[in-house]
Amino acid sequence: MPATLATRRGRSILRARRNAETGFAAKWSPLATHNSSLITCHLSAVSKAPAAIPDFSASADGLLPAIAQDAETGVVLMLAYMNAESFAETLATGRAVYYSRSRRRLWRKGEESGNYQEVQEILVDCDGDTLLLKVRQQGGAACHTGRVSCFFHQVTPDGVRITAEPIFDPAERYGKHD
Amino acid sequence: MPATLATRRGRSILRARRNAETGFAAKWSPLATHNSSLITCHLSAVSKAPAAIPDFSASADGLLPAIAQDAETGVVLMLAYMNAESFAETLATGRAVYYSRSRRRLWRKGEESGNYQEVQEILVDCDGDTLLLKVRQQGGAACHTGRVSCFFHQVTPDGVRITAEPIFDPAERYGKHD
Repeated sequence: MPATLATRRGRSILRARRNAETGFAAKWSPLATHNSSLITCHLSAVSKAPAAIPDFSASADGLLPAIAQDAETGVVLMLAYMNAESFAETLATGRAVYYSRSRRRLWRKGEESGNYQEVQEILVDCDGDTLLLKVRQQGGAACHTGRVSCFFHQVTPDGVRITAEPIFDPAERYGKHD
Repeated sequence: MPATLATRRGRSILRARRNAETGFAAKWSPLATHNSSLITCHLSAVSKAPAAIPDFSASADGLLPAIAQDAETGVVLMLAYMNAESFAETLATGRAVYYSRSRRRLWRKGEESGNYQEVQEILVDCDGDTLLLKVRQQGGAACHTGRVSCFFHQVTPDGVRITAEPIFDPAERYGKHD
């Protein structure tokens, strides 16, 4: 597989440059074929590079944290987890799919509320063990409480305060947690 | 402790409002006394609130992921982990302290490079199990590779490309990993 990838990488970089010019989202569609070699792509040319990007073998349970950031505003919306399967589906469909640790199954964000996340860009960190998704959040709120962002508890040396209020009533939007 | 905290919370909210007016960083200094009750502060008034903010008991190993975001630009710089001790020190000193999983000890970010992170704000998510630090990154780069952000691998359906170059030579800045 590395031999094949060495060839693929040259093409990939050229395509990525073209994507940068044309807009990345335009290249994504449900027709985009997921190629499992992406998950085990080797980057030996990069100093101290991980063995794979992303490297799901880096965690004992095969899960990596995935940060979702609003692509337009830069607001950090939430953190969830991905396994190789949810990552592959995200890459193929352009919609964020996580792995729910509590429900122990794939979690297609928005499957109950309709508030899915259109993925504009996927970035992986230096160690290959954390993902950053730049997304367009449908419905305006990522949090199951109805807030734009899940990060609404501000901790100070004096205590904790709530920094945001819900923009919709989650009881009306969900059957249960999303 | 909940009874004491009920009283503390009213005061905390008033102080937090004052902080918002005066600038939060100004309230932080090494003299700020860490109060362990913050870690177990109860927020029963919040729908589906976690038992504590942050809730280090939520993970088996006592570690929670902590996202560092540039307070000014919004760039997501890195993700590391905190335990209760590193969180307490961060809160008390206003500098980011993580727990290094590989070195199994507290990791005072910048301890080798001088590139510490001045913490402007600490946010915790709806479930109490993820932290978001808004920071000023000294030296301009958070990544041990010398890049501004650790998230420089862009993954597309066609492959992976490197999106940023180092702004300094890490070999000159570090004895080893930071």
